[in-house]
Amino acid sequence: MNTDKLQQTFLRVRSNKLFELFVVIIIIFSALVIGAKTYDISPTTLRIVGWLDLMITVFFVVEITIRFLGEENKKNFFRNGWNIFDTLIVLVSLIPISNSDMAFIGRLVRIFRVLRMISIIPELRILLNSLLKAMPQLGYVLLLMFIIFYIYAAFGTMFFENINPKLWGDITIAMLTLFRVMTFEDWTDVMYETMEVYPFSWAFFLSFIFLTAFAFLNMVIGIVVNVLEKENALAQLEQEEPQPTLAELQQEILELKKMIRELKS
Amino acid sequence: MNTDKLQQTFLRVRSNKLFELFVVIIIIFSALVIGAKTYDISPTTLRIVGWLDLMITVFFVVEITIRFLGEENKKNFFRNGWNIFDTLIVLVSLIPISNSDMAFIGRLVRIFRVLRMISIIPELRILLNSLLKAMPQLGYVLLLMFIIFYIYAAFGTMFFENINPKLWGDITIAMLTLFRVMTFEDWTDVMYETMEVYPFSWAFFLSFIFLTAFAFLNMVIGIVVNVLEKENALAQLEQEEPQPTLAELQQEILELKKMIRELKS
Amino acid sequence: MNTDKLQQTFLRVRSNKLFELFVVIIIIFSALVIGAKTYDISPTTLRIVGWLDLMITVFFVVEITIRFLGEENKKNFFRNGWNIFDTLIVLVSLIPISNSDMAFIGRLVRIFRVLRMISIIPELRILLNSLLKAMPQLGYVLLLMFIIFYIYAAFGTMFFENINPKLWGDITIAMLTLFRVMTFEDWTDVMYETMEVYPFSWAFFLSFIFLTAFAFLNMVIGIVVNVLEKENALAQLEQEEPQPTLAELQQEILELKKMIRELKS
Amino acid sequence: MNTDKLQQTFLRVRSNKLFELFVVIIIIFSALVIGAKTYDISPTTLRIVGWLDLMITVFFVVEITIRFLGEENKKNFFRNGWNIFDTLIVLVSLIPISNSDMAFIGRLVRIFRVLRMISIIPELRILLNSLLKAMPQLGYVLLLMFIIFYIYAAFGTMFFENINPKLWGDITIAMLTLFRVMTFEDWTDVMYETMEVYPFSWAFFLSFIFLTAFAFLNMVIGIVVNVLEKENALAQLEQEEPQPTLAELQQEILELKKMIRELKS
Repeated sequence: MNTDKLQQTFLRVRSNKLFELFVVIIIIFSALVIGAKTYDISPTTLRIVGWLDLMITVFFVVEITIRFLGEENKKNFFRNGWNIFDTLIVLVSLIPISNSDMAFIGRLVRIFRVLRMISIIPELRILLNSLLKAMPQLGYVLLLMFIIFYIYAAFGTMFFENINPKLWGDITIAMLTLFRVMTFEDWTDVMYETMEVYPFSWAFFLSFIFLTAFAFLNMVIGIVVNVLEKENALAQLEQEEPQPTLAELQQEILELKKMIRELKS
Repeated sequence: MNTDKLQQTFLRVRSNKLFELFVVIIIIFSALVIGAKTYDISPTTLRIVGWLDLMITVFFVVEITIRFLGEENKKNFFRNGWNIFDTLIVLVSLIPISNSDMAFIGRLVRIFRVLRMISIIPELRILLNSLLKAMPQLGYVLLLMFIIFYIYAAFGTMFFENINPKLWGDITIAMLTLFRVMTFEDWTDVMYETMEVYPFSWAFFLSFIFLTAFAFLNMVIGIVVNVLEKENALAQLEQEEPQPTLAELQQEILELKKMIRELKS
Repeated sequence: MNTDKLQQTFLRVRSNKLFELFVVIIIIFSALVIGAKTYDISPTTLRIVGWLDLMITVFFVVEITIRFLGEENKKNFFRNGWNIFDTLIVLVSLIPISNSDMAFIGRLVRIFRVLRMISIIPELRILLNSLLKAMPQLGYVLLLMFIIFYIYAAFGTMFFENINPKLWGDITIAMLTLFRVMTFEDWTDVMYETMEVYPFSWAFFLSFIFLTAFAFLNMVIGIVVNVLEKENALAQLEQEEPQPTLAELQQEILELKKMIRELKS
Repeated sequence: MNTDKLQQTFLRVRSNKLFELFVVIIIIFSALVIGAKTYDISPTTLRIVGWLDLMITVFFVVEITIRFLGEENKKNFFRNGWNIFDTLIVLVSLIPISNSDMAFIGRLVRIFRVLRMISIIPELRILLNSLLKAMPQLGYVLLLMFIIFYIYAAFGTMFFENINPKLWGDITIAMLTLFRVMTFEDWTDVMYETMEVYPFSWAFFLSFIFLTAFAFLNMVIGIVVNVLEKENALAQLEQEEPQPTLAELQQEILELKKMIRELKS
């Protein structure tokens, strides 16, 4: 009962917008400041930020502990993926970073400290969840893109290999070059080079750009339509009581008619 | 009563599309012409435009004054944010700019003169309002982007710092470089440089591009869905009378049946 | 009566997909071929294409003449904007182009010949109509963009004028530079240059990019929402018979109840 | 009957997500590995991947054979476009590639082997189908784009031909240059060059960019709206029973009233 009250207190603090803003500013500031050589920041400021940053970690150690104690069945606590994520993030964040040895561990701890934002701000979890849900659909579009890239790369290496082996020497290299063309990064340099040998090679590049842009578009539209549909389905579920269909209403009226007809006779 | 009529007259002038067009042309022309050295404009034109521009300001000084006098409770006038905005804009616009001293004040006055367009054209206010409303949601997406950038920048500085300290020397510099990669600005130069040392570093850049493009997409979709939902909610509110639900209709029909059953017995 | 039948025959020919495809190919081919120096095309081909191209024009001269004769009130014919457009296009297309004098007139005629596609393919008119309808909304977004550009250009000239007068020498030049930054075209070169004097000037560029991208997005979303709403409104109008509202149905049922209650007593 | 059971077994294997993942990995890996010179892969790995790849082809030879035998009317089998596609893909994939002669046939076989993914993964077929369905609409937008490009190219060659014949020498070359401008690829270089002769030529480029971006946007929106409408139409068809309209319900209630009125009298 006691932990229940504490849990509610922590929840109230967490959902306070000002507290959220304060936490975000401290985490971002301390993440950028440590190791930034180009800006002069007084050691006092650094020390204060360091302390505030530590306090945030301690706050969440305490909060998670209470959440853990409040859970009746301890096994259920670790069945929730986000609980494991939170615990891991906060535990690793407790490891101190000494600025002197910028080793792999130090960098990892710094990254974990930034990830505390995901533990703290529920909106970020919602965003991440929606990203994860869209993944499978994205996977199929990536496969389709791979096929388009592969076909163009196969023809690219066949015709342009001798023109510039650095760009077309190999199917994997050609695919990287095509990705560069898709991002429009100096793609005309790549094209003008091949047009000197094959004057019609612009058709190769233009058709590729249209196809990939079109496939990409399709992906975007597919995801939009999907999201809208799910939203609509959710909106219907959220209506308090189940609504009868028009057909059911019609049935009721037909029964009424029958009853009145019986009255007559 | 008198100010009320005047107010309506001003409103009619303001909502006139031709007047709006005239005001927009004068404001834009006078904003661009003052201080433009490259184009030769006759001093007569400049003087005429200057006078027309002043007249617009005077028109709005008068209009706001009447709006202020028309307000019964003077305190309420300044409770509306747009009224404060309008008053500030018009007052500062009255300060003359002498072309000779191009000081900070002169530039500021010029900017305020352009902002008169927001005071004059109600559609711009609607646009600005919708931008402001979308801000909070945008904020959370920016936080998510920050986390993605930070993680990649941490690994970037770790591996590529010795390859090109100008691009990867520091976590903040690396984040700027990654933003450049996201905008596809000469990103292949950055990548080819690192691929000479780490041949597989293309995976770093490609995964980064996919992640950020994907997160950005999610933002766009989120905003579209939000806007559409609000529009739908508004559309339902605009229907003149409250509509009963299908469940309520069913309830009525059931009551009818009961009444007929009572008739029978 | 006679022109009516002819008109229907022409309409049938026009709406034939094969005829449409043939016309599009001839128009595009003849548009590209005339004056194209880089590709060798036999004079015979050129002559045949020229003849086919002329035949298309003649076909439409005849078609428009019949449409004009079929109109009872000749004044109404020219009240329709598309009729004037068609007549103008076809008349100018009749002017022959001699390949030797590539004067202004020749080019204009060539452009008019391409515009015949809009006269011929109704789907292109629908597309153009929807573009024209979206114009006013686009206009307001452009005004908002102008204000954002102007404010940034004013600060840009103030701070960066001495760094590179070619890019920031003037408010109009600065606005062009900012448009370049918005398109991400070598924008890092512009930024790195200013960062050497003002190390924090990246904030200027990043905030500008976010603001303009955001405003642009808003435009897109606004147009999408508008289009969807109009489609929905159209869809409702297309339903054959007017549908009663749920409230009207409820009213009917209440009256029924009243009637039964009267029966009882 | 026997082939029917076998067919179901194959269908079950195919729709297994793990099997799908395995097939995708093998196909992609063997597609990239053959002929990749830059990465060192042990000959043993290559041989194993080669065998697994062959097994996948054999699996689909058997599967298609069973599907063909299961079809009662053999003619119907080849009336389905996808069946022809599958058969062709699998048959060509059976041709062995000897790594030594990298001739046209070898490359073609390799491409066909990648296309097996489309035969195997039903989601890719759905994606391809939706791409094919959107083609006609895309065609009209491309025609509109062509007209815009042609008009600008005509003026471009007229004014800028002497400035840089490599970019503006010919209408077809000018259209390619304009496509480059549309993709923002070093477009400022093209513009600055012309601005030295015609200081107002920025208007040419800016208006072009706005028009094409706007036309492209329109295309995207058109497709989104189309897709959403079809989805809605499908969703309505999927409802189990046909729903009466509100007008029909009203009719029923009116009949009820009439019946009760008859009761009274």
